[in-house]
Amino acid sequence: METVEWRDGNVRYIDQTKLPHEEIYRETNDYRVLGDAIRSLQIRGAPAIGVAAGWGVLLAAAAALPRSLSGMKQACAEATRVLSVTRPTAVNLFAALERMAVVSNTYPGSDPDELWGLLYREAMNIAGEDREACRKIGEHGASLLGPGSVVLTHCNAGALATAGQGTALGVIATAARQGKIDMVYVDETRPLLQGARLTTWELMKQNIPTVLMTDSSAGIAMQQRAIHAVIVGADRIARNGDTANKVGTYPLAVLASRHGIPFYVAAPVSTIDPGTATGAGIPIEERSGSEVTHIAGHRIAPTGVSVYSPAFDITPNELIAAIVTENGIARSPVSETLAGVLNRSIGYQNDPHH
Amino acid sequence: METVEWRDGNVRYIDQTKLPHEEIYRETNDYRVLGDAIRSLQIRGAPAIGVAAGWGVLLAAAAALPRSLSGMKQACAEATRVLSVTRPTAVNLFAALERMAVVSNTYPGSDPDELWGLLYREAMNIAGEDREACRKIGEHGASLLGPGSVVLTHCNAGALATAGQGTALGVIATAARQGKIDMVYVDETRPLLQGARLTTWELMKQNIPTVLMTDSSAGIAMQQRAIHAVIVGADRIARNGDTANKVGTYPLAVLASRHGIPFYVAAPVSTIDPGTATGAGIPIEERSGSEVTHIAGHRIAPTGVSVYSPAFDITPNELIAAIVTENGIARSPVSETLAGVLNRSIGYQNDPHH
Repeated sequence: METVEWRDGNVRYIDQTKLPHEEIYRETNDYRVLGDAIRSLQIRGAPAIGVAAGWGVLLAAAAALPRSLSGMKQACAEATRVLSVTRPTAVNLFAALERMAVVSNTYPGSDPDELWGLLYREAMNIAGEDREACRKIGEHGASLLGPGSVVLTHCNAGALATAGQGTALGVIATAARQGKIDMVYVDETRPLLQGARLTTWELMKQNIPTVLMTDSSAGIAMQQRAIHAVIVGADRIARNGDTANKVGTYPLAVLASRHGIPFYVAAPVSTIDPGTATGAGIPIEERSGSEVTHIAGHRIAPTGVSVYSPAFDITPNELIAAIVTENGIARSPVSETLAGVLNRSIGYQNDPHH
Repeated sequence: METVEWRDGNVRYIDQTKLPHEEIYRETNDYRVLGDAIRSLQIRGAPAIGVAAGWGVLLAAAAALPRSLSGMKQACAEATRVLSVTRPTAVNLFAALERMAVVSNTYPGSDPDELWGLLYREAMNIAGEDREACRKIGEHGASLLGPGSVVLTHCNAGALATAGQGTALGVIATAARQGKIDMVYVDETRPLLQGARLTTWELMKQNIPTVLMTDSSAGIAMQQRAIHAVIVGADRIARNGDTANKVGTYPLAVLASRHGIPFYVAAPVSTIDPGTATGAGIPIEERSGSEVTHIAGHRIAPTGVSVYSPAFDITPNELIAAIVTENGIARSPVSETLAGVLNRSIGYQNDPHH
């Protein structure tokens, strides 16, 4: 299964709003259609959004290929503008658009075909790096888990959320291949049920023992079942380690802290935003109230009720036992160790000279 | 609106599984039908279950009226047996059945009509006491709230859950009549959405400003909105104040503690179980997994997924700022003050000689 891929001049993606009941793949060569797919969560997950955005700019450049260099640069700028307003929280989106913009804006030559080639390479690099990051995150993260581990996860930070095997689910998948996973408790993740629909589906496809529960059940699960670790992804990590992730993550971190359960965040370094000092600087997307009042088209609340529907919350750095990246693990206090990971000092943890 | 009432030899109740879309009232003179209604949550809420159970025994006695005294006693015993296995956690159920059993078992006379009269009076007393308890709980609880209060509640501890104005929602209703309530944040309360379906409906009927949110949003609501108090009901309170309530209550208490927000439990003394020393002794009902995997008949998770579906969790006494009963308020540390309330020492708080 490829969540999102470049195929013969089109972006092809699985429509995640139809899972797990239908596996529908869509293809488009129009960056505006791709933008709509991101906005409507057909494509979702911070890293996957970044990868898709890179290809979105590439679609715009391809459409401009017959034209002049300035036409192509203009098309890239316009696509960047459109794609940048699809989702406000995932920093990977902006990071990918910035990388594509640098290529376009700093191209010193005069050949549209050459610029196209450079853009193509950059977009493929974004995807390839994400795939490789997932692999390394899985390896690093699995080292945090012992045999017989029972872990709890929230939302979907899996293959569907990335170009690779996932971040939090990548850790779980790697640990499962090492025979370490006894059970994964999956929060259903209201309102859009990414846990119930997507994470259970991914885990069951890999034959990893999976238990679904409501988001509210995490507390009693920690009271009455042995949970060894909580592992989640991230949509943006501030410079001090404060982490924005799917709403409901912060309550899990608070509960884990009370129960002495380590709380891990798994994310590529592209999720770390050095331009944001703390979680207070991360914009929190509010979604339509209808995502709460309706489930699968069925109304579940009185007509006219007001709704508060934040898509994310902020987990403060002091609740995070470790942030797992492709460059290594930033351990608590992550406010002090994250910079080392961000600076790509691979293996810095084991380097006494660092 | 009467949630459940005795009318002309029948128990009449609103089918809460159909709310808020349809207001359907059902009537039965068969205690087994009533038992099914309790099991399937057509009648729900710990105090309402107790009231309904009392009337259930009365239905059995009425059906036995033409028969002998021993036939009536036998019918009561059989109804008690059937009704006692409908829900395991709500102690009000067992308290009401016990009261009816005492009347039946200790009746010294030989006149079925007289026993019927005594049973009738006891069942009406259970309902009347609950109504009156709700009124007093509302008065006591409202004294804990200041003007401009923004409160958060979970599940439905309202008129639908009692024979009166409710417990937690009774406090809110009384405070609202005193002009103290600015806003009520309502957790939707998965899996059965009592908050989204029932609590919003009750509050909106009373024109109390209401905001619905997913259960997972309570954390960011406490981060970003001013929440002054959390108020919930209870299904069973142990002798030390540990409280069983709808799953998701314990996470709210942990979050409230972190944010310095007082966490209040409102419940009649019939919810306090002196026979249970601590929360560890409270049985936690597990519900069918289909309540999680299906919403309004629509499947939201892969076929065959395992589900963990506890109906309740336990909030430890140290997280509870006050337990509000009709006899007064047991303030933190509730492990020490609850006995005074249980012993019906009305107004003991203000009595320096207590």
